[in-house]
Formats: sequence, C-alpha cells, structure tokens
Amino acid sequence: MSAQETSSQTEPSQVLEMARRARAAADILRAAPTGAKNAALEAMAERLQSKMPEIAAANAADIAAAQERGLESPTLRRLGFGPEKIGSRVRALTEIAALPDPVGEEKSVHSENGLRATKRRVPIGVIGVIYEARPHVTINAGALCLKSGNAVLLKGGSEALNCNRLLGELWQESLEQAKLPATAVQVIATSDRDAVRQLLSLDHLVDLVIPRGGPGLIQAVTKQTQIPVIKHSHGICHVYVDAHADLDKARAIIFDSKTYAPAVCNAMETLLVHRAVADELLPPLAEDFKSVGVVLRGCGQTCALVPWAEPVSEEDWGVEYLDLILAVRIVESLEEAVLHIGRFGSGHTDAIASEDAESIRQFVEEVDSGVVLINASTMFNDASRLGMGAEIGISSDKIHARGPMGLRELTCEKWVIEGNGHVFRAAQERSDEV
Amino acid sequence: MSAQETSSQTEPSQVLEMARRARAAADILRAAPTGAKNAALEAMAERLQSKMPEIAAANAADIAAAQERGLESPTLRRLGFGPEKIGSRVRALTEIAALPDPVGEEKSVHSENGLRATKRRVPIGVIGVIYEARPHVTINAGALCLKSGNAVLLKGGSEALNCNRLLGELWQESLEQAKLPATAVQVIATSDRDAVRQLLSLDHLVDLVIPRGGPGLIQAVTKQTQIPVIKHSHGICHVYVDAHADLDKARAIIFDSKTYAPAVCNAMETLLVHRAVADELLPPLAEDFKSVGVVLRGCGQTCALVPWAEPVSEEDWGVEYLDLILAVRIVESLEEAVLHIGRFGSGHTDAIASEDAESIRQFVEEVDSGVVLINASTMFNDASRLGMGAEIGISSDKIHARGPMGLRELTCEKWVIEGNGHVFRAAQERSDEV
Repeated sequence: MSAQETSSQTEPSQVLEMARRARAAADILRAAPTGAKNAALEAMAERLQSKMPEIAAANAADIAAAQERGLESPTLRRLGFGPEKIGSRVRALTEIAALPDPVGEEKSVHSENGLRATKRRVPIGVIGVIYEARPHVTINAGALCLKSGNAVLLKGGSEALNCNRLLGELWQESLEQAKLPATAVQVIATSDRDAVRQLLSLDHLVDLVIPRGGPGLIQAVTKQTQIPVIKHSHGICHVYVDAHADLDKARAIIFDSKTYAPAVCNAMETLLVHRAVADELLPPLAEDFKSVGVVLRGCGQTCALVPWAEPVSEEDWGVEYLDLILAVRIVESLEEAVLHIGRFGSGHTDAIASEDAESIRQFVEEVDSGVVLINASTMFNDASRLGMGAEIGISSDKIHARGPMGLRELTCEKWVIEGNGHVFRAAQERSDEV
Repeated sequence: MSAQETSSQTEPSQVLEMARRARAAADILRAAPTGAKNAALEAMAERLQSKMPEIAAANAADIAAAQERGLESPTLRRLGFGPEKIGSRVRALTEIAALPDPVGEEKSVHSENGLRATKRRVPIGVIGVIYEARPHVTINAGALCLKSGNAVLLKGGSEALNCNRLLGELWQESLEQAKLPATAVQVIATSDRDAVRQLLSLDHLVDLVIPRGGPGLIQAVTKQTQIPVIKHSHGICHVYVDAHADLDKARAIIFDSKTYAPAVCNAMETLLVHRAVADELLPPLAEDFKSVGVVLRGCGQTCALVPWAEPVSEEDWGVEYLDLILAVRIVESLEEAVLHIGRFGSGHTDAIASEDAESIRQFVEEVDSGVVLINASTMFNDASRLGMGAEIGISSDKIHARGPMGLRELTCEKWVIEGNGHVFRAAQERSDEV
C-alpha cells in the first residue's frame, strides 16, 4: 500500500476532541522533566532515520499530486522532503534536545519589606501552528513546542498531506516511547478548510496561534480567530547600498541575500542602490546574478546600466518573489531608501551596506523592522546564527516575539510573590509616611 | 457654560484621521528625547492641578447623568474623579516622569566570528486603549504610552465623556508645551460605538489594542479586530486557606484582599477554606466582614458556621462582584481548591495562605495564573509594589505581558546585527566543517 492509499483525513468535527486532548497533554507537559521531553525528541530522530524511505515515498506522492495540479516551482521546492532534508531534520532534533530547557527558569524581580517577587518561566499551554506545505515545519514546530512544554496542533498545507500524516504518527509513537502523552504533538491532516475554522474557534482551549505564510494565509487566520496570534508573515526584504559602502563587501552580501535560499522569508527581494555607486556596482553584480539565472527587474536607470534587465513595475516593489527574481532601484539618497522601505517593506529584515557611521545610525534608527543588518547578509536573520539554537519561524509581529522565535519565545512568565502575612493597607501606609 | 454644554463628540469618520495623525506622531516619538517626554508629563501634572475645579465639575456632570440613568454603585465608584483622585494622578504623573525610560536600552545577545547581534528596546508604535468609565485611566494610560514612546488613542466608557474630553484637551496643551506632537495622546470622545468599530478596523495604522474591562467588552473587541490584542480582562481571584495556614496571617490577608479596593480586578471574589481550619477561621473572620458591611455568600458548611451568610449559588463562583460581596466555599483538600480555581477562576491573581512548603509548592505549580501569591494579599498584584513604578493595567493574557504591565511591557525589541561583509554561505561552510 502506498502512503496515499492509507491516508484518511481528519474530520473537522474531530478537531475539538484533538484540542481537548492537547489541553490535557499540556497540563502534564507543564511539569514534565526535561529528560522525558528530550527522550521523545531523540526517539523521533531515530524514527526519521529508520523510516526515511517511507517518508520520502509519502513526500514523492505529495509532489506528484502537486505537479498534476500544476503548482509552481517555489511551492514544489518548499514541499520537497527527500533524504537530504530528512537528514537535516534528524540533526535538528538532536540539536533541539541538546538546547537548555527554558521552563522553570526563575529570576528575582523585586524585594521590599520582606515581600519577594520572582518571575518563573512556564509553557504557554496549547499552541496551534498553521503553515504552508513545508514538511520540515512538522518536525521543527513540533519539536520546539514540545521542548518548551507546550502541546501543539500542527496544520500544514494540504499539498503535504501524506507526508505530514505519517510524521504525525511518528510523533505519537515517539511520545509514547518517552512515556509522555501521545497527544502532545498532533497533526491535523486534512484538505478540508473547515478543520482550520474549527481550530480557530477554540479560544477556550488554544492559547496561541502561529500562522506562517503569505498575506492571504495570515489574513484568513487573523480574521477568523479571537485567540492571540503571532504572525509569521511574508518578508519583503531590502538591501540598501549606501554612497559610502565598500562595494566588494556589498556585492558579496547582495549575492548571498538573494541566492543562498531564495524561497525563505528573509531572502532579499529588492535591492536599493545609491546613485553615487550604481555605475561601479551594478554591471559586475549583474554578471554574478546572470551566471546563476537570477532575473533582474530594474528601474529605468538600472536598465540603462544592465541592458538585459527587465523593466520593473510599481507592483514589483510589494511582491515577495521567493524565487530567483530581484527588483532593483537606484535612489538619490538614504532618505529615499528609508522611505521606500517604509512604504513597500513588510518590517521583516532589512540591511544596509555602508562604512559611514552616520548613515548606519540613521538607517538603524529609522527603519522600523524586526531585524536590521549592517554589512551582513539578510540570511543572518536565523536563530542558529544568533545563539538561539533553532526557530519555529520569524515573527513579523511586534508583540511577544519579534524576529526569530525560539524556545524562550514559546514560553511566558508567571509571577510568584511570597510574603509572610503581608497586607497592602499596611504597605501603603508605610509608603505614605515616607 | 457647563462642560456638558460645550462637549462635541468625536464622529466615527474622524477616527481614521486621528489614527493617521497618531501614526505620524509615533514616527516622531520613536526618537523623542526622554526629557521632552518628561516635560509633557510634568506639564500635564501642572494642568491637572490648576484645572482641578473644572475637571471635578465635568466629572460631576458625568456622575449626575449616570445616576439619572440608574447605573449601579460599582460603576459610579469607578467613575468618580474628584479632587482626591485627581491629586493622586498628579503624583502618578510625577512618578512616571521620574521612572527610567526603557527606550534605547541595548543588550548584546550573541557574537560569532565578528558578527555582533544586539537587541534594542523600541516603542511599539500606535496603541489603542479601550476601557470602562474610569477617568484615571485617561491619565495613566496616556502617560505610560507617552513615556514609552508610543502614540495612543484613548477610548474610555461613554459615561465619562465630559471628563475624558477635557482631559484630552489638557493632554494636547501639555504636549504642545513640551514641543511634542499634540496628537501623541488623543481622546476619542463619543458614545457612538461605530467609533470603536472604526478604530478596531485600522490594522494598518494601529499596532496594538489594549482592552480593559469585563468579559463583554473584551469579547466585543477581540471579535472585531485583526490588530494584536493584550487583554486586561476580569479577575475572579481566590484566596485559599490551607490546612497548614497561620490563621492570624490568613485572616488579615483575606480582609485586605476583599476590602482594600473592592472595585479593582485583583480584589478577591472567592474564599476557599480547608475544612480542617474552617471552624476556627470563619466565625471571627465573618465578624471582621460584618463590621464593614461585606455580604457573605457561603456553601452549606459555611452557612452552618456563619448563620447570617446568604446561600451561595453555582453561578456565584464565576462572578466578578467588584463590590463588598464575597463567595465562600469550604473544601476537603488542596486538590479540590486547585480544581475549583482551574474551573471557575480567570487565571488572574490567586493566593494561598499556608506554612507548609509542599502545599505551597503544589499550589504554585498547579495554579496556572499570571500572579500567584503566597501568604500575601491579592492587592500586591500591583506595579508600584513590584518595582515597576506604574502600570497601564494587569494583563490577563499569556502573550507579551502577563500580570502587571508597565513601561517595559509597552515596548518591544528590534534586532540589530552588525557584520563586516558577512555572508551566510561562508558561515554555514565553516560550521559544517566543525
């Protein structure tokens, strides 16, 4: 039997029961020892390894179905989950198991007249993650929620149905093996949108929803729910090359920001170049891009310098290509670059290449994005390079978590205030006397 | 002319323009020096002082109108804004001016191969605060948003219309005096609910909505908006007296938790008493309450010990009285108390009175509330007693801020990553070699 033949879909009516079980699992996970959580992660890593052929086959069935439906190449690239990507998730699980557990951390906040206030880090509870057809998220999001003591309901794009369903089964086996509730990580495997609607209505059972995807997905989620949401929205990311840039560095940063992983949200989509350096920078840079098949869409001045560039349209500035396409604009000043980013950007990841302290100061202060980079590739908006170990995604919100969201951002703090018969009336009187 | 005669209401169609002006103000406030923000706060303190008779008169007009409409005593108590309460806000403004400014704080997060990542504290942007008819919030919320560099749109309950409108004018004058944009603090003064609907639709202009109030207000807000929300919802707060409590301490804590400020969200609404100590505790405690007019609503066993107590109904356990009424239940065990709190509580503020380390440990671990107190009055869920200076309210959410929400919780962090031509490809290759 192929994976496709065995798949039965989650019925929307089942989602309520799944959320109830997640809630019960969360009550146990809240106090679960780090060792048990790590054991589940390691058991999952072993299963990914031993079931690699089955997982790859389920993914191949998903890809074949997607090709039949005529889906585009960025979607197919994200959907792919072959041996190499599975192997990388095996390593990720081992790395997440090795990360310190943030749950239970305490910090003393205040002490006054014998009253001691501390903050204790605790899991959030039940988290719903809604994402596109990227099977690696089924591993990553599951692992990070579990390690941070949360129960999670995973709803990936329906193109990845077969693969996600199998990964959900492996999660359950791994949790059981570690003597943790099997419902701590559950996959909602269906192409029926009513299941998402159902999930989003459960504000008495679900504490947080994390939607990862483009503006359409994000808006559909925020419109339908009263549950708190941390959006992982699209990145329209810019690199601005200042008049005072080191052009060799700039050229390398730009190439890396566009080509290292074009399908990720922090890949550069628009390049802004100060007119003073455009003549020197753009022609050789265009050669770099041409050699790897990047399409350039340029403003009039850009096209004059790079004859093979296509003319850019006003709409291009607001598009997240997620592909080997780059919009290029020559600007008159840093102010013009900042205004462009404010108008068309998504507040995600923006970089400046400059050797001038004042340009850098101004750019960092005026660009209101979650991650602002100086003389570095936009690819460095990445938890593994920022000492966070691993990320569930990159928050495009300002609330709770901004930028890469790791284990700590999947927890919250609870106040514990200890007195010895302290009453407020007396405390106020004491302070009124002062 | 009385304040009532001069009042013209904000039209719903004006709210969009107000939000645009708030956005523009936020762009300036983001980089405003602490001194200018403090000058506006001090100017507002002076105005509150010098305009005290006018403010009190506007408030008296509001109260008279509310009495005419037959509103209940807790509403009238919250609405009151006479010289004493105004004086307390003058002091609050001075205190907020004296607090350290969290904006601009930097912390180094990570450094690797010459790439340095820091987090810089920045304002959130434009905040909408929606609250009941409590004029002191028009001062507090305005002051805290301003000090933390945010522009704010204040929409208080329509019963406080006259008073809030006048306070809004004083905010504008104070901001102008400090050479800050007058639209940094704006009052939406209207009883037309379309104005709130309009505000909640502006997700491209407003970054955060803070609703403060009961479940009805909170739900109306979360249903209507796609803007991130931090709920300041109702507190159904408990004190549990353990079998191993010091009853003298318990008695004092309970009395303070109920009577110090019965109309605030962290006042105790339900008392849970372990059966082993009920006989000894309840009769004298009931005398304390009787002497100040607190109505007791007890379970069967409670009524047997306190004959004048009214019988409690099942519905009482889920009610936030905000008044001199207390529900009392005798429980068989700590487990029963924890289950009661989990079922009926609102996760806001809950306390245990006990001298037993194991009881305390279990209560703190199993009660999933924002603030858990040990041998201290629930009144200590208060920013001024927790080293935070002042609070915009008490968050009942787990996301971004939990418990008292002060200046720091009104900001967010932005990543600033500085390299020297760093590209990700090279960094990954280096780490693959390891």
